[in-house]
Order: sequence, then C-alpha cells, then structure tokens
Amino acid sequence: MEIAALAGGVGASKLLLGLCRVMDPRELTVIVNTGDDVVLHGLSISPDLDIVTYTLAGLVNPETGWGFGDETFRALEQLAVYRGPQWFHLGDRDLATHIHRTSLLRGGARLSEVASSIREALGVQAQILPMSDDPVPTMLETSEGRLHFQEYLVQRRAEPIVRAISFDGIERAHPARGVLEALQRAYSVVICPSNPLISIGPILAVPGVRKALQERRMHVVAVCPIVGGKSLKGPSDRMLGQLGYEVSALGVARMYRDICGTILIDPVDSAQRQAIEALGVNLVIHPTVMRNVEDKEQLARRILQLTANQSAGASA
Amino acid sequence: MEIAALAGGVGASKLLLGLCRVMDPRELTVIVNTGDDVVLHGLSISPDLDIVTYTLAGLVNPETGWGFGDETFRALEQLAVYRGPQWFHLGDRDLATHIHRTSLLRGGARLSEVASSIREALGVQAQILPMSDDPVPTMLETSEGRLHFQEYLVQRRAEPIVRAISFDGIERAHPARGVLEALQRAYSVVICPSNPLISIGPILAVPGVRKALQERRMHVVAVCPIVGGKSLKGPSDRMLGQLGYEVSALGVARMYRDICGTILIDPVDSAQRQAIEALGVNLVIHPTVMRNVEDKEQLARRILQLTANQSAGASA
Repeated sequence: MEIAALAGGVGASKLLLGLCRVMDPRELTVIVNTGDDVVLHGLSISPDLDIVTYTLAGLVNPETGWGFGDETFRALEQLAVYRGPQWFHLGDRDLATHIHRTSLLRGGARLSEVASSIREALGVQAQILPMSDDPVPTMLETSEGRLHFQEYLVQRRAEPIVRAISFDGIERAHPARGVLEALQRAYSVVICPSNPLISIGPILAVPGVRKALQERRMHVVAVCPIVGGKSLKGPSDRMLGQLGYEVSALGVARMYRDICGTILIDPVDSAQRQAIEALGVNLVIHPTVMRNVEDKEQLARRILQLTANQSAGASA
Repeated sequence: MEIAALAGGVGASKLLLGLCRVMDPRELTVIVNTGDDVVLHGLSISPDLDIVTYTLAGLVNPETGWGFGDETFRALEQLAVYRGPQWFHLGDRDLATHIHRTSLLRGGARLSEVASSIREALGVQAQILPMSDDPVPTMLETSEGRLHFQEYLVQRRAEPIVRAISFDGIERAHPARGVLEALQRAYSVVICPSNPLISIGPILAVPGVRKALQERRMHVVAVCPIVGGKSLKGPSDRMLGQLGYEVSALGVARMYRDICGTILIDPVDSAQRQAIEALGVNLVIHPTVMRNVEDKEQLARRILQLTANQSAGASA
C-alpha cells in the first residue's frame, strides 16, 4: 500500500522514521522541501533532503536532529582561517555530501538524481524526492530586510519579524520527476508535522502540486505541527503569528482545508474539534509529540490505520 | 635583496623554508608549478601551491611533506561511501583550502589572487605566485595511455613508462601577474631542486618565462635535484631516463645551460665538474640533501652568498 509524504526537516523526519519502521519502506515516497537549499562556500546544500536521508539511514545526530551523529568540524575550523562564512554548521562527513552533490550538479545531474544517489549510498529504502529540480529559494521580507530563509533561521536565529514569504522562481519551477505520479498513485498522502509556511508551503507552491492534492483530498492526512498553540519544532508559531495566521490546530486546519480530508491533532487541542470539523475536515485525535521511537511508531501506525480505513472505504 | 625562486612541491619547499629562515621572507617571491593542478570531486586542487604555502606556514605534515600536519580524513571516508575517487588523499583541513579556492575561482578570482588569499590567511610572508592563472595540465603519454600527471603519480604510483610530456594549452597561457616582473627584478633567481621535467619544466614552458631567464642567466642559480644519479624526491630519475635524458647532475646542467649561469651540485657528483663547466655553467659544490632544518639553512645561506657575490660582481 503506497504512501506519499510531504516533508520538511527535523519534525517530519521523526514521523517518517516511524512510518519506515511500521510499513515496507520501499512503498514510501517522501517529497521534500528544497526552499531551504542554499549555496555556501560554493557548495550546494539541501538541508531538508539531508535531514530526511540521514534520519532514515539511522545516521542523524540524535541530539540536534540534523547532521551526522558521529561528526567532526575540522574543515569548518580551517574555513574560518580563510574567513569563510561560519554561521552554517558543516561537519566533515556532512561536507562530503555537499561536495558529492555539488560535483554531480555541476556535471549536469538533476537534484532528484543526486538525492537518489545519496539515499542509495546510505542504504535508505524509501524513495526520497526533492519537490523540484529547479532552485526555488525561500526568501523572507523581514524587519531586517530581505533574507534567505537560512540566513533568517540560522544566522539570525529567527529573531527578525517576518512580513512576507516568497519562493523565488516558483512560477517557473516544475515538480521533480515522480512527484505528481507519487501523489496520484499513493493510497494515502501524509502531510508531515512541518512548518506549514516554509516547509510544506514551498512544496504546495510548486505548480501542479496543490491541484494534485485537491484531487486526492479525501486521501490526504495532515499531522498538525502546532500543539497547544506552540510549534513542535522551530519558529513556526512565531512566523504564523507575525503573518496573521491563528497559531492553533484550527489555524493549520484552515490552511490545509482545501487539500486535506483528515487532520490529526494532539489531545491537548481537543477543544477545537467542532471548529475544525465545521471546516469540513475530519478530525483524528492522537498524541503528536514524538519523544521516542515508540511515539513515532504509534503515530505512524495510527496514520496507516486511517489509510487502511480509507482504502476499505474506497473499495466498499 | 630580492630573490625569486622557481618551485615544484616537496623538494623545493625544503630549500624555500631554509631561505625564509636566513633572509627577509618578504623579499622572496616563489613562482610555483601549476601543471599538477587537478579538479577532483569538483574541487580545484593545486598541490604544489599548497605544499609550498603549508611548508612556509609551518603547517605541513613533516612526515609526508604535503598536506596539513594535524589532519583527519573524515570527509574522504564519507566520499568513499558516495563512490567518489579515493586515490587522492584529501584531509579535512586540506579540503577547506580546496573549497575556499574553488569558491573564489568560481566567483571570478584569478588563481594568483587565491594563492595570495591563502598564504596571507596562513601567515606566510613570502610572495607565492602560480606560474600562470591559466590551467595548463601536465599530460603524460605513457605505456598505459594518456594520463594526467596526478593520475600517473598518485593513482598509478609512477609505474607506467613515460613516453612524452605535454602541458595542455601552454601556448595560450600567460605568466601570472608579477611573474616576469619578479624574474626581471630579482638579484638572483633560484631554480629549486625539483623535477626538471614536470615541476620546473611547466614553469619554463609558460610563454615569456624561459626568455626572461635567458636574459638574467648570470643571476640564475639552479640546485641540482639529481644526486648520485638518483632523484632527491619523486620519480624524476625514472622519468628522465625513460625520456632519454642522462640521469645525472651533468644531464640536469645540459637541460638548464641556456637559462642558468651557476649550478649547485652535491659533493658526491664532484667528478662531473669538468663536463659541467665545459657547458659554460659555473659549478658550486655543496651538500644538497636536506635532512633537517640546519641542512636547509646552510644550503640557503650558500645560495645567498653566491647572490651577494653576483651582486658585488655586478656593481663592480
């Protein structure tokens, strides 16, 4: 039973790891945000692709959720001697990924081919696709001017006030080969608990993706990334508030209502049941805070259960 | 009293270190072979420039004579996972140099600007210039086909028989800014004890360089890299023999006779005095095997002494 998932980085990877442990990972296709991609030191860096890949390979740093677990920073220390930018933490093993990717891209490979090469080399069985092979950098208009998302998040620690978000070149971007096919083919599409604005938002903005989801709406399940009015991970809550969205499960349900038939929210947000159901979105209540592998597996099992029901319902 | 030096890698660096210790290094301009330069993993690597720079910075690996002394190889191990080429040993700190260089070159900088940036960052006071800002890869016709010099030396451990040497694009190459000026301005030009064919040869082949040396011939001192019929370092002896040159101090003197007024040879080769002097080349006998810092300083002092004599002679 094939599953497709839309994913950002750390938050999504927890659920994806759970899914890979309770289903045949070869039946999972992960479509990953690349709006965060950045070129630093001349190297093409794809943070979310790497977080997902390293996590599913069992190699991610368990303390940070990104980068390799067993890592050193010798090259970065030397780059500091050459006065290179230091704000993006690049480990020595991680650098190999970026060197490999940059070399393949300069040789004419597509980002999706590079992503396959990396996940195969690291032994990941799930398909991992970038949302697009075209660069679509997420740019933020902020109280400190126009910033690349990584500058905002890592260099400026998400402190500036965000006034607008854009994905540069999105109108000319194409979904990577396999993205639309996976969305059309999957029994169920899972929207992982990632930032709706800058992790899931860029994927939905790739021409054709939102429409493909609208057509599969009753097979789309979103896991709400806002619990008790706060984001599970990262600055989602702050950004949502600054841009005028309601920072709640209901606010997320409103953003996804046209593409998602079911939303899974945490028990702490049960009081929002009626308001969410009034939007025409089915509600499932299940703990969404994943502290350990058991939490991840249980959430993944609950999603597969919904999928099986949908499947049964569809065939009924 | 300004000195210019033509240099390859490890052998040259020993003498250059000696020179920097017995003269004001700010008066030394080193013109370095770039025929060995290679692009690997998409990174621009300049082995001889780095060997010279790391050595003069006091950072070179004392056991190998190349690379940083305090080094790890984590990125290279990870690149192996991605099935990248493994034959060229790239340390993590060393990678930072190549990443920095590649990034600057792709941004439009000249190789000579990059070389300055690196040697300044590492605190080297001597000027270090690439022979040319244009890529001029040394290609060898061998018993195993056409090979880049690094493939021959590192990947094939100098085992194939060399039939011909060429420097691709040399006829269109220009000396880097400052090269000809340094050769014209220096009181003395030192040809370091490097491979005459593939370390000094490429420098001499850059249009204008050989002529500049011919015009300064009486101010040019070569340190013979062949001692007792063997090369001090690397495969020079084998290559010279395979290409029909006499593998001896006399053979080297014949190769340099048009550009070099004085050759410095080791005492073990004293028997070749008459034959060398018969070429019209002045002979100085001094130990050329540099085993420690004292050897390097003594050889450097002997060269400066010759320079002072030349200078006195010129002004007399």
